[in-house]
Amino acid sequence: MLISDFRIHSLAFADPPLFAASGLHAPLALRTVIELEGADGTIGLAETHGGSVPAEALEAVRADVIGQDARSVALKLVGKAQNMALSAIDVAALDLMGKVTGQPVWALLGGKLRERIPFSAYAFYKLEDDWSGFSRAMDPAGMLAQVQKLIADYGFGSVKLKAGVLDPEIEIESLKLLRRTLGPDVPLRIDPNAAWSVETSLSAGRELVEELSNGGYFEDPTRGMAGMAEVRKRLLSEGIDTPLATNMVVVSYPTLAESVPLDAVQVVLGDHHYWGGLRATVELGRVCQTFGLGLSMHSNSHLGISLMAMVHAAAATSHLSYACDTHYPWQRAEDEICAEGRIPITDGCVTVPDAPGLGVTLNPDVLARLKENYARCGMTRRDDAAEMRKHIDPNWQYVCPRW
Amino acid sequence: MLISDFRIHSLAFADPPLFAASGLHAPLALRTVIELEGADGTIGLAETHGGSVPAEALEAVRADVIGQDARSVALKLVGKAQNMALSAIDVAALDLMGKVTGQPVWALLGGKLRERIPFSAYAFYKLEDDWSGFSRAMDPAGMLAQVQKLIADYGFGSVKLKAGVLDPEIEIESLKLLRRTLGPDVPLRIDPNAAWSVETSLSAGRELVEELSNGGYFEDPTRGMAGMAEVRKRLLSEGIDTPLATNMVVVSYPTLAESVPLDAVQVVLGDHHYWGGLRATVELGRVCQTFGLGLSMHSNSHLGISLMAMVHAAAATSHLSYACDTHYPWQRAEDEICAEGRIPITDGCVTVPDAPGLGVTLNPDVLARLKENYARCGMTRRDDAAEMRKHIDPNWQYVCPRW
Repeated sequence: MLISDFRIHSLAFADPPLFAASGLHAPLALRTVIELEGADGTIGLAETHGGSVPAEALEAVRADVIGQDARSVALKLVGKAQNMALSAIDVAALDLMGKVTGQPVWALLGGKLRERIPFSAYAFYKLEDDWSGFSRAMDPAGMLAQVQKLIADYGFGSVKLKAGVLDPEIEIESLKLLRRTLGPDVPLRIDPNAAWSVETSLSAGRELVEELSNGGYFEDPTRGMAGMAEVRKRLLSEGIDTPLATNMVVVSYPTLAESVPLDAVQVVLGDHHYWGGLRATVELGRVCQTFGLGLSMHSNSHLGISLMAMVHAAAATSHLSYACDTHYPWQRAEDEICAEGRIPITDGCVTVPDAPGLGVTLNPDVLARLKENYARCGMTRRDDAAEMRKHIDPNWQYVCPRW
Repeated sequence: MLISDFRIHSLAFADPPLFAASGLHAPLALRTVIELEGADGTIGLAETHGGSVPAEALEAVRADVIGQDARSVALKLVGKAQNMALSAIDVAALDLMGKVTGQPVWALLGGKLRERIPFSAYAFYKLEDDWSGFSRAMDPAGMLAQVQKLIADYGFGSVKLKAGVLDPEIEIESLKLLRRTLGPDVPLRIDPNAAWSVETSLSAGRELVEELSNGGYFEDPTRGMAGMAEVRKRLLSEGIDTPLATNMVVVSYPTLAESVPLDAVQVVLGDHHYWGGLRATVELGRVCQTFGLGLSMHSNSHLGISLMAMVHAAAATSHLSYACDTHYPWQRAEDEICAEGRIPITDGCVTVPDAPGLGVTLNPDVLARLKENYARCGMTRRDDAAEMRKHIDPNWQYVCPRW
């Protein structure tokens, strides 16, 4: 199927005031949706990072997309396009070819190993807002209440705590409170996004041995490949084999190759948005399996197209060893751009669809509204630090490590 | 598409008297063809190793194949079936789904990067036969004549010499004669199948620096991962960086992982028949690329179904860095089981088909004849040593290394 049109939509939608090491989420999150239209009018969709830089990277490959065979277009962009642009084209081309052939994307990725994809509750320290239904959470008790609501609403069976925000002692106590309250069988993860020094990471690693055992992991406690390798080596030397996970130091095949001899990480968080697309994510599973690494899945604030793309990749990845991350509970139902409406998460899982392509189509009214949001908001990139300075501390600066 | 029937055909077809370190090819080569029939009557094909062991391994997965969804059947066999059986099911299921959706297999593997797949001339020391059109070749001049005929008939642009048969001096002189006659631009490979000791490999590696440069490689000179690593290390220490290739020590993902820190090989010869199928072969390309290894493709005596499967995998593999091996010129046109007839190799290349599936279907008359051959021949496994004892030396034994 030849590609006859390529449309790039920059969107903005409501996002609650969530904290991370990078600062505070702005009230609007940015996202880009693309449409690849085939010569027969079939439309393939993908969703990726928002703002001007991704939109420009996508625009830059227009000449390599229009008029190309949708079956090979992404493969021919490998090494030529930025990985983010390549990834979006890969997803949209797979959606298009799935719709053309009547096959779900998972069938084009090699098959479906599971009917339901488990996701993890993704808990954030946050300010109050008037719409998300989640309260302010700036201490262990607030965090526990948030996690309990996430579990009550969605049935999540594992929990990730976004850390690197408050004093490490508070974050450690938050995780300990989760363990005490939720019991021993819920896998827990903590992710300070490299906000901790090697020494702080080591002391946290020692304090959280029990909390991070039983299917959990310690995600990006500290900065850089060497720092991660040092944390791993020193914890192991003390008999602590909590797996270190990352979406910061292993972000590509070359960095994966670099990490293997260093044993810098034991779990890779794949993300089809920057690893090269859905096939590359399935291949990442094979590479991780070959080298004895676990595989999980990373998320940014996203809508239903990305969620479904994650679901199809997860369905086809034999080695996916952990529940996937998702920000989906933090988005509003009315901002869902999929015509099929908000995608249900029940018992912590999304059901793998058998409908053609990704299984979703665009709601043109919501698309138009979110494009209008983008045009009006004046933001062209995510800037959590600016939001932090606006609401918390006018002198706030991103520093790494902070503790 | 649910799989309603699974047929396994054991075949035998004419094979000329070619020598390798394992002995001498028998007059009949064994091969297995499978058919997966979908509920709508569509038939998916695959071809794999012959004789009773592969047929039994395939029979053993019958209950995991019949009634399954063709889109996921192979993925669900990973880790459960022998790789050879898994691989055949993967190919046949892809052919079936390609035919059901009207898509070539390359489209189901991620796309087509090239229109024509280059193959290498595969030259063997051989006895006289009365049908292949190739003369006896038991010295450098005979080998040169064979290679020249292979190039004249098929246009091959690179040459692989199967060694480990005659005294290494004769084999080295054969390769030198090829280089002198063919000029500097034809990549040459030599493959003694581990018949050489480390010391013999080192002296051959020193003598063949020029012959194996410019896109060539030194394939499996010696036995075992440690032996290969030693040859590599010592040649490198002398400033000789001829890449070592293998289809003997790296034959699976675990052995690949083992080889990387040892730098035991620099080129992996993939083979979809035992690496887990076509998707696994494409994934192998990614793993090799990640770890800086080259990728080529291995062959055994085969018919057109395997050739087309190799072509589709090669079309979709971005990192395939060498022309593929093929025994196809050694088979008779009248033994071709594909209804489309013998597949043309011109300018050393096979054109990637755009027809649905692999692009071939069965010729029932040839299939019946080759099944009859198998039933009558009494052979149930390849035994090059027995053939060697019959024709060359009644006391011949396989030894490794021989020189």
